Amino acid sequence: MIALNEWKTQVENKMEEFMERLDAPDRLRDSMRYSLDAGGKRIRPALIYAVLDAFSIDRSKGDATAAALEMIHTYSLIHDDLPAMDDDDLRRGRPTNHIAFDEATAILAGDALLTNAFSCLLEAPASPEVKLALVERLATAAGATGMVGGQLDDMLGERGGINDVAELESIHRRKTGALLVFAVEAGGLLASVSSTDLDHLKQYGRHLGIAFQIQDDILDVTGDAEKIGKPVGSDEGNEKATYPKLLGLEGAKRALTAQVEAAEQAIDALSVEATTLKELLDFVVKRDH
Amino acid sequence: MIALNEWKTQVENKMEEFMERLDAPDRLRDSMRYSLDAGGKRIRPALIYAVLDAFSIDRSKGDATAAALEMIHTYSLIHDDLPAMDDDDLRRGRPTNHIAFDEATAILAGDALLTNAFSCLLEAPASPEVKLALVERLATAAGATGMVGGQLDDMLGERGGINDVAELESIHRRKTGALLVFAVEAGGLLASVSSTDLDHLKQYGRHLGIAFQIQDDILDVTGDAEKIGKPVGSDEGNEKATYPKLLGLEGAKRALTAQVEAAEQAIDALSVEATTLKELLDFVVKRDH
Repeated sequence: MIALNEWKTQVENKMEEFMERLDAPDRLRDSMRYSLDAGGKRIRPALIYAVLDAFSIDRSKGDATAAALEMIHTYSLIHDDLPAMDDDDLRRGRPTNHIAFDEATAILAGDALLTNAFSCLLEAPASPEVKLALVERLATAAGATGMVGGQLDDMLGERGGINDVAELESIHRRKTGALLVFAVEAGGLLASVSSTDLDHLKQYGRHLGIAFQIQDDILDVTGDAEKIGKPVGSDEGNEKATYPKLLGLEGAKRALTAQVEAAEQAIDALSVEATTLKELLDFVVKRDH
Repeated sequence: MIALNEWKTQVENKMEEFMERLDAPDRLRDSMRYSLDAGGKRIRPALIYAVLDAFSIDRSKGDATAAALEMIHTYSLIHDDLPAMDDDDLRRGRPTNHIAFDEATAILAGDALLTNAFSCLLEAPASPEVKLALVERLATAAGATGMVGGQLDDMLGERGGINDVAELESIHRRKTGALLVFAVEAGGLLASVSSTDLDHLKQYGRHLGIAFQIQDDILDVTGDAEKIGKPVGSDEGNEKATYPKLLGLEGAKRALTAQVEAAEQAIDALSVEATTLKELLDFVVKRDH
């Protein structure tokens, strides 16, 4: 059974404990904590815990990696919200970091979260080889090849226009998908799964990532503004490419189904039952915010 | 003998080779390279190579670490120059990254350099244990406890005023000193020196770091504008605390001598001759820019 709330508490406790120990100027720590505490679904940590559960590994083994991953995700939100980027004043109903503090502090809080995520990652209870693999995978997923590269292309796309699904998918695969794949891969590395299982897990992560994005785009068209925390149709007003825009709403729903089926196939190919991974997939697709 | 120009070429070749292999969007890669190529003294890489030379280790062993460190240093310059931070249009006579590209690209180029510095660091030819120690030390030196924390306090100090040398030193120790200490420590780790030698190296790095900063401040008062690349006395006009301001020019010179002597003592305590470290110290203190 997936235990989203328990997992959420678990990673939040680990982040809090890490931040308490971190020797940092008060204002910097306050700013880092402000955004770490902002909540959210903690879907990336959930993926790590779900993989550990599926392979019957004590979930606490994932704490440091889950916290590190959430620190990276949080830094990316702080920098994305900056005036020079998306220029957002609100996130999840609260002032964004640069509004609550100031722009310079927000830039530095993001930089510190990114840097110290690697310190946190090294606390994973694993062999030196596994720790090195985690560092290598995280840097690749979060860096120029992954998240940051996807973010830059997304920005250029918003200026210049994205016209086909392959291009849209390439951006999402890097901007949000890379960290989701890292989550399941990290779970697999921590659980010492076989290389075959690791491949299936990554396959699952890739399809879940695209499904996640399609569902986001669909919710922007059909969702409840209060639940999703932004005006419905807010993608419509700007030039942003979305699945419904490129494929129509029904086309987007069909694409979602195809991704879910592919993710399910990857789960079925695993050497274990992995009910938690199925339930997590369900949660991602059926969520209303 | 220190071979500053050879070392400079060596780290620049490694960075270039790493960047060529990096799978990144063109604009992001261009922006990262623009700042990596901006030159400078490459003093941090030089410290790594000087330690390896002192312990008779092939200097190529330091390439990956030197490149990673210079990537971190470069990202910090890009972010420091941003409008929300120091708002500088020029660095070393060239437009800063956000002027040459744009602010969003500069933020992302900095983020990518920081993240992928860890990928580069993992290419160090060393045991898993040494690699993990390098990752841990670099994250601590560059993060909230080190460089980013020092940068934030420096910013707050410029707003609120710094009134004593201890406070000024605490900021420099973190803002610039932490990466210099990392450089000598990394050299020591790569050379597998004894823990006693490692302590002496770190001591050397700490004193050299403060000496470096005092000399910077002195040059701002006495230097040649063309050589130092900014107007002489530019610290005078703003509220920035400097050693000459707090101690007077003669007091600052005496403080510099004291730091140099302490650094020399640390070198003398090493189990090897370490002529290169003495020469590097000399270079830092006697430079005119």
